[in-house]
Amino acid sequence: MDVLLLPPLFGLAGLLVAFIIYRIIISYPAGDGAVAEIAALIHKGAMVFMRREYTILGVFLLIVTVLLAYGFGSWRTPTAFVVGALCSAIAGYIGMFTATRANVRTTVAAANEGAATALSVAFYGGSVMGLAVASMGLLGLGALYLLFGGNPEHAEAIHGFGMGASTVALFSRVGGGIFTKSADVGADLVGKVEAGIPEDDPRNPGVIADNVGDNVGDVAGMGSDIFESYCGSMIATIAIAAAMTLAQVDQLAVSREALMFAPLALASLGLLCSVAGIVMVRLCSASAPAMALRSGTIGATVILIATAYFLLSSQGINSAVWWCVVFGAVGGIFIGLVTEYYTGGKPVRVIAEGGETGPATVMIAGLATGMESVVVPVLVIAGIIGATASILPEGTGVYGVGMAAVGMLATVGITMAIDAYGPVADNAGGIAEMANMGEETRKITDGLDEVGNTTAAIGKGFAIGAAGLAALAIIAAFIATVEKHVPGFMLRIDDPRVLMGMFIGGIFPFIVSAITMRAVGEAAFDMIKEIRRQFKEIPGLMEGTAKPDSDRCVDIATQAALKRMILPGVLAVASPVVVGFVFGPQVLGGMLGGALVSCVLLALTMANAGGAWDNAKKYVEKGNLGGKGSEVHKAVVVGDTVGDPFKDTSGPAMNILINVMAIVSLVIAPLLG
Amino acid sequence: MDVLLLPPLFGLAGLLVAFIIYRIIISYPAGDGAVAEIAALIHKGAMVFMRREYTILGVFLLIVTVLLAYGFGSWRTPTAFVVGALCSAIAGYIGMFTATRANVRTTVAAANEGAATALSVAFYGGSVMGLAVASMGLLGLGALYLLFGGNPEHAEAIHGFGMGASTVALFSRVGGGIFTKSADVGADLVGKVEAGIPEDDPRNPGVIADNVGDNVGDVAGMGSDIFESYCGSMIATIAIAAAMTLAQVDQLAVSREALMFAPLALASLGLLCSVAGIVMVRLCSASAPAMALRSGTIGATVILIATAYFLLSSQGINSAVWWCVVFGAVGGIFIGLVTEYYTGGKPVRVIAEGGETGPATVMIAGLATGMESVVVPVLVIAGIIGATASILPEGTGVYGVGMAAVGMLATVGITMAIDAYGPVADNAGGIAEMANMGEETRKITDGLDEVGNTTAAIGKGFAIGAAGLAALAIIAAFIATVEKHVPGFMLRIDDPRVLMGMFIGGIFPFIVSAITMRAVGEAAFDMIKEIRRQFKEIPGLMEGTAKPDSDRCVDIATQAALKRMILPGVLAVASPVVVGFVFGPQVLGGMLGGALVSCVLLALTMANAGGAWDNAKKYVEKGNLGGKGSEVHKAVVVGDTVGDPFKDTSGPAMNILINVMAIVSLVIAPLLG
Repeated sequence: MDVLLLPPLFGLAGLLVAFIIYRIIISYPAGDGAVAEIAALIHKGAMVFMRREYTILGVFLLIVTVLLAYGFGSWRTPTAFVVGALCSAIAGYIGMFTATRANVRTTVAAANEGAATALSVAFYGGSVMGLAVASMGLLGLGALYLLFGGNPEHAEAIHGFGMGASTVALFSRVGGGIFTKSADVGADLVGKVEAGIPEDDPRNPGVIADNVGDNVGDVAGMGSDIFESYCGSMIATIAIAAAMTLAQVDQLAVSREALMFAPLALASLGLLCSVAGIVMVRLCSASAPAMALRSGTIGATVILIATAYFLLSSQGINSAVWWCVVFGAVGGIFIGLVTEYYTGGKPVRVIAEGGETGPATVMIAGLATGMESVVVPVLVIAGIIGATASILPEGTGVYGVGMAAVGMLATVGITMAIDAYGPVADNAGGIAEMANMGEETRKITDGLDEVGNTTAAIGKGFAIGAAGLAALAIIAAFIATVEKHVPGFMLRIDDPRVLMGMFIGGIFPFIVSAITMRAVGEAAFDMIKEIRRQFKEIPGLMEGTAKPDSDRCVDIATQAALKRMILPGVLAVASPVVVGFVFGPQVLGGMLGGALVSCVLLALTMANAGGAWDNAKKYVEKGNLGGKGSEVHKAVVVGDTVGDPFKDTSGPAMNILINVMAIVSLVIAPLLG
Repeated sequence: MDVLLLPPLFGLAGLLVAFIIYRIIISYPAGDGAVAEIAALIHKGAMVFMRREYTILGVFLLIVTVLLAYGFGSWRTPTAFVVGALCSAIAGYIGMFTATRANVRTTVAAANEGAATALSVAFYGGSVMGLAVASMGLLGLGALYLLFGGNPEHAEAIHGFGMGASTVALFSRVGGGIFTKSADVGADLVGKVEAGIPEDDPRNPGVIADNVGDNVGDVAGMGSDIFESYCGSMIATIAIAAAMTLAQVDQLAVSREALMFAPLALASLGLLCSVAGIVMVRLCSASAPAMALRSGTIGATVILIATAYFLLSSQGINSAVWWCVVFGAVGGIFIGLVTEYYTGGKPVRVIAEGGETGPATVMIAGLATGMESVVVPVLVIAGIIGATASILPEGTGVYGVGMAAVGMLATVGITMAIDAYGPVADNAGGIAEMANMGEETRKITDGLDEVGNTTAAIGKGFAIGAAGLAALAIIAAFIATVEKHVPGFMLRIDDPRVLMGMFIGGIFPFIVSAITMRAVGEAAFDMIKEIRRQFKEIPGLMEGTAKPDSDRCVDIATQAALKRMILPGVLAVASPVVVGFVFGPQVLGGMLGGALVSCVLLALTMANAGGAWDNAKKYVEKGNLGGKGSEVHKAVVVGDTVGDPFKDTSGPAMNILINVMAIVSLVIAPLLG
């Protein structure tokens, strides 16, 4: 059998495993009465949002496809683009469909069977998302590679797949991020602060939207984010290998084909390791949840590192490349742990203590924490770049960076499963609260949720690190591709065109952050007005005798998200095209460099400051420094509210922004000659 | 007479003019009784701080001088270093000495002679600082050029002058910034919020420190900041001209000497234009203050542009170079106007309105405003780079960038005068309040102060733009210098060493911001404790029968500033040396590129967000949206408190940080071979 068939076959097998897990989830009882009703509302809200989002996205994709077909005068790149977009959309749909069925079953399991079963169900829910991401990536990209990979003339069409995936990701992430935070902030401000009712209270018209938001933002948005980094890192590595000189290839492997296929092979292996990791979590589910989840991640990484050695050497690849994989895999975990410190360790207590002198001190301490938190992760990225360059032969260092990124992302099945577990557990708690399931159930879901918060923070740090490396590899691939088409092309920092580009590129993360933060603020304001209106105009709502009109709130969040995701999306996709064709590849290359550095820095700052503020609030709410209702609590709530768009809207948009810009540049690279 | 003698002679003449203006200031009455007493306390506090700061600085400079002497094995670079540091320190000392004498005379003039005379005195106070900066720069740098400029082997020693100036600037800016904001925040929090007494109330032990802070931060700190950009841009342009190939020189001028001397000639011309601008302001002082000040800036720039054409063509320099000067001069004013919009226009009202839903919304709106405000200024910088590159012959574009930076900074005498006018007017108001000079006087000083706030915002934007261009030119000079010493040296973005450097460089602004923001928070906390103690322990203080111990507060701010300025200073000076010698010039070059982009972006974001928050608070305090004491007011005060370290400590430190890193790299460039 042709070895090239393996990645798509692995992808199909992964989907089968995901389907089996889905059947297992469905076999758990879904509850009845209020529980089932609430779950149905969340499920419906999420699905309606997805459908409307995909409709808008479809129009945008159609336009881009036509432009691509026109620009390339061939069907290959546009086809790859459509396939990439579809694969991402399908993975997101599968994941969210499952998550909104797993949430209520987790609640019921918590009520009837206890913590261990509830953990299993929630984690199964996340696992389907993780496996869907990894499998759809391998299936789609593997199939395209089978089609185009062998022919050097057509291999560049594969880049279109990444562009499709990244475009979907940007819209999903930004749209989902605006949805979830406008609902969250709006529901909290009116419900908790003005009306004085607890979080997730069924009388609050905004809570269904808030719970829908967890799914569209943290499940579907996060999934498409990881999907595009995952595929982007593979595509970039393939492109770098394709552009190497023969002399360089000879130093690394027996053939160019081996180098080009290596990322797909490694990712296929990673899928196997992820399944092993999922099984490990299942086996440990009786122990503490945090332990169980961690054993899965670390276990999968260890197996990957061990088996990758044999995989690569069996393909006749220089063992230095294996070291690059090790750097990437270990670096990813290290970045995650640093994130955990900044969003859960001493800095969180310092921020909370700042609340004693008011919200301004909380803000200053949080921003300082976020800024400080960039140091180690960025040094890790720089270290990976330096280390790969120093162990690989001269000129082949960028291939090593690409393989390090693939190494970091190969076990995406398990890391994504753990990420998606968080919002499922969060939702399960929300449903328990809304349906008045009692103290005991709520305590179990709270425990699961708390673990989910920590793993989410780690997952975010990991996602940023991986996206940064993937973008770096894509940029390297862009440069290599342009070099093939433009003789003498070179990106020198002292070239004024490159410098100009670096400054222009640096602007993007700032403008996109500004747009998305404003969007959340404005959408939350609309939400506040609607919730206030319902409290005033619906008789019996506060007494619990009438039902809120939660559909209206879901609709407001949906419309706000869909309307406001368009500008950042268009900016990211169009700017490389405009700059590339108007100012040339030197300015575009500089722009990517400037955008890369400033995206990574801003993403880390925002994600970690937001995470730290969130946990500072939780720290106070646990009864420290005066507890709930104290002046300190008010101060840290301000921090948390600012942190919401930081960590769940603007910050995560940065990862994808740089990847979209890079992959669009890579796609148009052959046309810039 | 040798034309090379002109810059130092112009410098001497400028100092003479400054001295004459100083005598005019002194001829105004200094008041007596409480007024004189308060003024003496401020003067003494400022001078004590300067002396202690310069002592610590002296030790640091001595160590660096010894290291330079050891590294270069020659007396030239260390001598230039010491001269640069001395010139900067002397300029700062002259300016602050004068400012702390002009402040009280402005108060007295406002009380006895009215607004026009008060404006004149305050502006004279600023003018001495402006002229001192420009003159000391021309004198010191001109003298060194006379000594070393003619000999290609020794010309590189001039770089040491810039390093000396930048090192002093970093310590002054960071130290002054921490001093002024810890005093400001501390005095406000206890006085205004806790004790409920007005700003600048004489009973508050912290107000003298607050007023001292205005002088050490906004006069001396700002002066040294502009001084180093001013000299840095000239040094860089000289170095770029020195490193050009003969063919490149031929395309631009009749001789290399003409190109090397051009920045000094232009700056000498700029000094004349500045004096003309100062006269214009004086002549217009009967009209509205804002008009008078603006006529000076615009007038000086117009004269510079017109006369520069003849100056450059008389030196046989290609007229394209004149266009670069025009781009720089006009670009600087444009950046200033954009800054004025973001810190005074519609965005400020939007932030204030955000206060209606609490401090979190104020924070989000302010941060979004700061981030959005980077777009136009950075595009202007990118446009200047692109425009100079497109009109100059291939390969000589960086010389144009250098001349654009010199063009922007040549009229520093007047721009700095207007900057320094602000704190003098602010101090005059503080003295009037503390000495109970009555409603009428206070109204005049408030009017002057308000104008000063706007001009300060413009000045900050201008300073960041100029510093960015200057740093860019220095980096280009660094690359050109290394190229001379290391054959085949090239900074390609796809070189892993360069990439690694870019990421490392990007970290610096974030870590320095984090350190300085924390420093202000902690120092303010010490201040708060001391003021609380005095209110409690000094009997009769609140009743006005006993005096506060303001010396203790000055001392606390001084110690905090001196202690906490060291780490950022050492980081900035040492890191290029360590990276350059350990990892090589490629990593160092990449590091400068990454640091440049992220410094400029962060500096603009922080300065403009801070300015916008400040003015949003003032907007509410004028009676809008509920006015003082309302919930909206409380919310915008939170924004202002966060904005204080943003705009006066961390943000301004960014300019100098990148210049220090760049100039240190330029100095060590010949040793990296």
